[in-house]
Amino acid sequence: MIASLPAAFGLRPIGVLRTPFATRGDCPRNGRQIDPAPECLAEVFADFVPGLADLGGFSHLILLYWLDQVREPSLTMTPPFDGQTRGVFATRAPVRPNPIGLSVVAFDGFASPGRLRVRYLDCIDGTPLVDIKPYLPTTDAEPAASMGWLARHATRSPGSA
Amino acid sequence: MIASLPAAFGLRPIGVLRTPFATRGDCPRNGRQIDPAPECLAEVFADFVPGLADLGGFSHLILLYWLDQVREPSLTMTPPFDGQTRGVFATRAPVRPNPIGLSVVAFDGFASPGRLRVRYLDCIDGTPLVDIKPYLPTTDAEPAASMGWLARHATRSPGSA
Repeated sequence: MIASLPAAFGLRPIGVLRTPFATRGDCPRNGRQIDPAPECLAEVFADFVPGLADLGGFSHLILLYWLDQVREPSLTMTPPFDGQTRGVFATRAPVRPNPIGLSVVAFDGFASPGRLRVRYLDCIDGTPLVDIKPYLPTTDAEPAASMGWLARHATRSPGSA
Repeated sequence: MIASLPAAFGLRPIGVLRTPFATRGDCPRNGRQIDPAPECLAEVFADFVPGLADLGGFSHLILLYWLDQVREPSLTMTPPFDGQTRGVFATRAPVRPNPIGLSVVAFDGFASPGRLRVRYLDCIDGTPLVDIKPYLPTTDAEPAASMGWLARHATRSPGSA
């Protein structure tokens, strides 16, 4: 049903994510589940490289990407680790009306101009990148936030990285 | 130049944000600048309301929205509070290739089914909402993150909310 609603806004890829995960089955539940987290790359297309200026000094970034393997969005989903059907907006599952993935990643500098070394991605290799934002602890860090139904499934303690 | 690149992915609005800010000039620099932060609403269209199940118990959410006032994206911008030209991916400015706004908001429950009471939005009234994600401190909170060039412009201490 929701898949038939018209798209109103157009997104363009600005690059591609390189991860060790070839298929959805290879992906960890989240990017901090594997310890130590494998190094990944965010490769930005040449046209957009001037936008990367001044990223030096940020230890963390927010990456937004397009989960292009999603064929059929849904308003509910049943997480395999939980077994109960949940509203999709109360999950981070890919099968959402707008399949935008979001990861807070550690930024380890540039492998070359346009290629960012990052950790904590959980998406498959080749996922299209749509935005890079600086992570700002002043507005983005809420270490005491409560996690609703996900609290008992937490994979690490808040702030333990 | 970049505005002429084709859009590859389609986004659909799932609702609309209600804020006290009628124009871009009314918007604060970020949603935590006004103290106390005004109450805002995230109004979700009826078709998508079933996706809101199980949001109870999450104290914070991540809202993604479409900054539909942006007419001309740019790879660099000059923040008024800084005066130096910066790469747009090192800023949270709206004039980015894909103008997706992101706010970590406090979630104060439902005003009615489909209407979420939230705080810390900084966008204009009527901004289209495109996604709601639960905020997970285990993967989203990095209170010790360093802020690069923005460090000297911080508007509050990390974690002080």
